[in-house]
Amino acid sequence: MEKNIALIYGDCASPEIVTQAVRVLDKIAEKHGHTFTYTRAWMGGEAIDKFGDPLPQSELDKCLASDSVLLGAVGGPKWEGMPGDKRPEKGLLRLRAGMGLYSNNRPAKIWPQLADASPLKKEIVDKGIDFIVVRELIGGVYFGEHKTETENGEEKATDVMSYSEHEIERIGRIGFETAMKRRKRLTCVDKANVLDTSRLWRKVMHRLQAEYPDVEYREMFVDNAAMQICKDPSQFDVIVTENMFGDILSDEASEITGSIGMVPSSSLGAGSCGLYEPIHGSAPDIAGQDIVNPIACILSAVMMLRYSFGMAAEADEIEAAVNTVLDKGLRTADIWQPGCEKIGCSAMGDAILAE
Amino acid sequence: MEKNIALIYGDCASPEIVTQAVRVLDKIAEKHGHTFTYTRAWMGGEAIDKFGDPLPQSELDKCLASDSVLLGAVGGPKWEGMPGDKRPEKGLLRLRAGMGLYSNNRPAKIWPQLADASPLKKEIVDKGIDFIVVRELIGGVYFGEHKTETENGEEKATDVMSYSEHEIERIGRIGFETAMKRRKRLTCVDKANVLDTSRLWRKVMHRLQAEYPDVEYREMFVDNAAMQICKDPSQFDVIVTENMFGDILSDEASEITGSIGMVPSSSLGAGSCGLYEPIHGSAPDIAGQDIVNPIACILSAVMMLRYSFGMAAEADEIEAAVNTVLDKGLRTADIWQPGCEKIGCSAMGDAILAE
Ligand SMILES: CC(C)[C@H](C(=O)O)[C@@H](O)C(=O)O
Ligand SMILES: CC(C)[C@H](C(=O)O)[C@@H](O)C(=O)O
Repeated sequence: MEKNIALIYGDCASPEIVTQAVRVLDKIAEKHGHTFTYTRAWMGGEAIDKFGDPLPQSELDKCLASDSVLLGAVGGPKWEGMPGDKRPEKGLLRLRAGMGLYSNNRPAKIWPQLADASPLKKEIVDKGIDFIVVRELIGGVYFGEHKTETENGEEKATDVMSYSEHEIERIGRIGFETAMKRRKRLTCVDKANVLDTSRLWRKVMHRLQAEYPDVEYREMFVDNAAMQICKDPSQFDVIVTENMFGDILSDEASEITGSIGMVPSSSLGAGSCGLYEPIHGSAPDIAGQDIVNPIACILSAVMMLRYSFGMAAEADEIEAAVNTVLDKGLRTADIWQPGCEKIGCSAMGDAILAE
Repeated sequence: MEKNIALIYGDCASPEIVTQAVRVLDKIAEKHGHTFTYTRAWMGGEAIDKFGDPLPQSELDKCLASDSVLLGAVGGPKWEGMPGDKRPEKGLLRLRAGMGLYSNNRPAKIWPQLADASPLKKEIVDKGIDFIVVRELIGGVYFGEHKTETENGEEKATDVMSYSEHEIERIGRIGFETAMKRRKRLTCVDKANVLDTSRLWRKVMHRLQAEYPDVEYREMFVDNAAMQICKDPSQFDVIVTENMFGDILSDEASEITGSIGMVPSSSLGAGSCGLYEPIHGSAPDIAGQDIVNPIACILSAVMMLRYSFGMAAEADEIEAAVNTVLDKGLRTADIWQPGCEKIGCSAMGDAILAE
């Protein structure tokens, strides 16, 4: 197969991980007779530096024309304090919206080799941590009006959170479909005791529930969910939730796996062209030192093969290689533990390639 | 001293814990020569049943006329599915707003006797968990407009999140003042990379920072904060944040102490009249069985003595009694562990009274 992949190298330590992911992609293409061509697109801080805009139309167009987009991470101290629409993050939000990527899928799974790195007790980890947060990605308070005006002689800021039925329905359906492919348990997280948007979520979810009688469906308030993720993560299979709650809970979820440097994500919309990125940030503190963990980015490329290109065998092979490398005790600094060998970013890339 | 306390017995298992807290208050009053009189006020589900309204004006007036309000918890399955403004929770929100209680103080502290109950690993717990979440309580998306309308043939729900400078300044000040009385470290949690309200928070906080040069001040995104609370809670002393983030993070924070049945809270405004309530819910599943843990409610009464009535010695005495009871190995079911004696709600009240 021929695939055109848009690459966004991103900011700070991010280019280092994207570089390793591309090496892995090239190797698997060679092995399986695929041709991957790459189009570099600029987004985030690097785009602000180059174009004065975190996502010029030209760059969005490159992504839209690609078969899928691989991204590292954007942002950094250099661009902090910029006005809202001139921030690296704004480029990411515009990319998600511009590509119509409403469904963000963030797995929280313990790697047996790294189980000790979880901040949770062994008894809790041993019950199993293997769930997915399905986060709505282009609605809610992230995309409502943001304004700051003067009222009664002082500033007043406002952010608007909205959801329409069709926005809830399409992500709710992904939640149910994802659960059907797994252990068939879906938890909808909201704050229906306070928010109208949450009450509309529940109404639409109840309608969908009738279509998926095999799924064990329940609802949970977001404050309680933040507790339950620490208390007993084994209770979760799939969580579906709105944009901001998904942001908060998926970060908490990745933390309890003990290895945020290992967590990939996929963002998809109506078609097969998706955006694949690690859930970790751009790690400005360790940029340029070849010590950042490239695995989340490599696993994001794996998700791209699996979900956008239908290359399941290729995806399995790379995952197996990562597994073997971990079994051998090779670790980047963030996941290093006594008894393991500490290696850098490119050495981790080498090790995975070697398998 | 003479004090008039408004009592809201609350829903489900809540009256059981309020009853024990009142016994403790009576005992301490007798010992120290105070006179506490009680005015019963109805709020939440019980008020819906009695008046068809979760907080009639008459009941709010009783609270406003009191020296402080002691509450258990409201809500339950019976009132779920009611329209937004006829829910028990709406009574609580109107009470907080009606009393002008903008500052909610939620301590997250490990009780040494219960350290094993934390879901976090011993190495993490041993570094110390002792921080306070200062949550803004009457602004933000909880109190903005909520509406659901038909647009393009489908329903669209909207919730509005707003903050004005004076609302941020008064709670920001509480954050700094609280830090000054403690380890002098303040973390402001927000989502300034996305929200205008968060950017206004930062602006106001920077102004206040100049007045508190002794406080080590920093800012953290809410998604990262949700991770850091699991990863290394010892880094926090005081967290100050807006209403919804405070709701989510304070629940997560109480969970990592391992004993949500132990966490009290205070809500204060401009004057000394406050609202004191456990942060746990109304525990419908165990209502009427005399097994709910009354300690969070008793400790809420302790906060009332300390912060609204200036009775520090009395507060210390009750806290010491709770400590002794835990040292003796007496536990309600929620905090029970092998080797301890399991007792009910009223027996826990008896035990604390006996000290
Ligand atoms: C960078 C930021 C805008 C983004 C978000 O909140 O969506 C990030 O935290 C994420 O979760 O991908
Ligand atoms: C009952 C609910 C409205 C309330 C809140 O979200 O404020 C509760 O969760 C709390 O934290 O006191």
